[in-house]
Amino acid sequence: MTINFHLSASRLCCLTITAFITYATAVMAADQETMTKPEYAIAIHGGAGIEPDRLTEEQKQKYLDSLAATLEVGRKILADGGTSLDAVEQTIRLLEDDPLFNAGRGAVFNSVGGHELDASIMDGSAIQGGGVAGVRTVKNPISLARLVMTETRHVLLMTDGAERFADEMRDKPQIERVPNTYFSTESRRKQWLETVEKEKAKQSEKRNQETPTQKGTVGCVALDKRGNLAAGTSTGGLVNKKWGRAGDSPILGAGTYANNATCAVSGTGTGEFFIRSSAAFHVSALMAYKGLSVDEAAAYILKDVFPPDTGGLIAVDHDGHITMQFNTAGMARAATDSSGKVEIKLGK
Amino acid sequence: MTINFHLSASRLCCLTITAFITYATAVMAADQETMTKPEYAIAIHGGAGIEPDRLTEEQKQKYLDSLAATLEVGRKILADGGTSLDAVEQTIRLLEDDPLFNAGRGAVFNSVGGHELDASIMDGSAIQGGGVAGVRTVKNPISLARLVMTETRHVLLMTDGAERFADEMRDKPQIERVPNTYFSTESRRKQWLETVEKEKAKQSEKRNQETPTQKGTVGCVALDKRGNLAAGTSTGGLVNKKWGRAGDSPILGAGTYANNATCAVSGTGTGEFFIRSSAAFHVSALMAYKGLSVDEAAAYILKDVFPPDTGGLIAVDHDGHITMQFNTAGMARAATDSSGKVEIKLGK
Repeated sequence: MTINFHLSASRLCCLTITAFITYATAVMAADQETMTKPEYAIAIHGGAGIEPDRLTEEQKQKYLDSLAATLEVGRKILADGGTSLDAVEQTIRLLEDDPLFNAGRGAVFNSVGGHELDASIMDGSAIQGGGVAGVRTVKNPISLARLVMTETRHVLLMTDGAERFADEMRDKPQIERVPNTYFSTESRRKQWLETVEKEKAKQSEKRNQETPTQKGTVGCVALDKRGNLAAGTSTGGLVNKKWGRAGDSPILGAGTYANNATCAVSGTGTGEFFIRSSAAFHVSALMAYKGLSVDEAAAYILKDVFPPDTGGLIAVDHDGHITMQFNTAGMARAATDSSGKVEIKLGK
Repeated sequence: MTINFHLSASRLCCLTITAFITYATAVMAADQETMTKPEYAIAIHGGAGIEPDRLTEEQKQKYLDSLAATLEVGRKILADGGTSLDAVEQTIRLLEDDPLFNAGRGAVFNSVGGHELDASIMDGSAIQGGGVAGVRTVKNPISLARLVMTETRHVLLMTDGAERFADEMRDKPQIERVPNTYFSTESRRKQWLETVEKEKAKQSEKRNQETPTQKGTVGCVALDKRGNLAAGTSTGGLVNKKWGRAGDSPILGAGTYANNATCAVSGTGTGEFFIRSSAAFHVSALMAYKGLSVDEAAAYILKDVFPPDTGGLIAVDHDGHITMQFNTAGMARAATDSSGKVEIKLGK
């Protein structure tokens, strides 16, 4: 709670009473929370670019089934005493392998009809992480990002350099190489060609401005039984992107952040806004320095920092409290914790 | 000021008195500040990797002369009513052109004997910015970063893609192209070869770990007469870097941040720490959410967030108050404002 110094004595009296009431309520809430604090918690997202109203029931069911199956894999890792980092890496690998999502197989096409993938992962116990941007032949960029964290002193490797690092990691089973066409799907090719046509038609636009239309990303945040938080994010980026554009997904603090003292966050949306506002770290800073809850901090970013229709984020705090919020039409998302409650949703 | 709810009535009484005293002091300080608030302010740095004790007097003088000349160019832009963005871009161009500093000409060598340059710039009035990472033929990366901000909807372009963007900007006079060897200097080549030898000798080190030894970067922060803040950073990165490693310099929130509501920041040091802690944005968050001054916020990052010998940062707040701090042996730095006071220093 923040007070300024323009307090009169009577205001301070009121404050005393309010403070005691709030304190009592806080103690009760804390007791309740201790009783219900989950042993572990996990949330995943498949992007805030989804528009549920434009999907058939069958399409919706496909998303929900994929989210449910992925969530269960992550839940089991945590229930069996696995680390939050493993839960994050393994669930994101599944989402990368699923052609439904804009990450790994099913990634959007760039301006020359290829794919450039970004990912990052962060370990909240060490406030350490790794990211890769613009990789082209690594089947699971999230696993390469984790190796950047564990096998180098760096936190961000780019394009050809990241590919060379993948070459050096060739003995690691999690680093499978594929031709760039592996990532292509027919629906993404169609989307790309439509985007190209649409952008050609926009004669009024400034020559060098692209329209960031797609907000597809996948991500996971988790709290394990040891109290360690982790977060990860992976994406194919923007449809028809050019000039080696990097969004927030490979950047710690922008698209991904984890700190055991506060929370783990994964973002999805127009990456430029996430970078300009250090969005993922921003959630943590609002908790640490302004005393906001993870719910309030996420809401602040989406309402007060971002313009409408920017994206969404999932976060879990050190007490296992999960928040999943977005200011777009929908966000593919799922969450569960050791209490057994499950939420799997696409729309509001 | 943050209070928790464990306050007794007597503590609240003490608080009342303390609050009034603090309030009175704050009012006095505010009055003084209004009187002395400068019309404009500017600070520049040439990296926190400098070790003054290992320099000859002649070498020191070279640094001081270059800093003084560069600062004067920036000061004049601001004194003449120019924008903080122009002051930042023009001073950084000079530092990039000066072979003394690890940015532009004089950039360190990467692991294959070439140069890859990173830069970013941010406009505190729009909380907008641009960055380029791994460019190889752009004489002044800071100017390309500014064009990313003004001519695209993106905030980060990488390697080949950033070069292609530079190709498209060929009609802009500030985008001069040079062969990669333009950036080479004999002293940097010597430093690279020594680093290669040193790293070969370190048999005990993990195979895939490099030693981030160099903390060379240049940067500028400025407040103009309209009250607009801007920040910029440019670097050649780490000596002998490989795998397309990107540090904090091209990343908004990490190495560079500006927001008219708080401050403008440029960092120098081991970029990985700046990224992991969103260091430049972190300074702003500590001001906005914890009520710290720019001095206190910078000190917090360098003492409580970073390990020793990590780097430094320069910042100017919306009132024109400048701070220049580092936790290394030295930082090449200079600052001035409309009051006429000037500080130009290398060591403590």
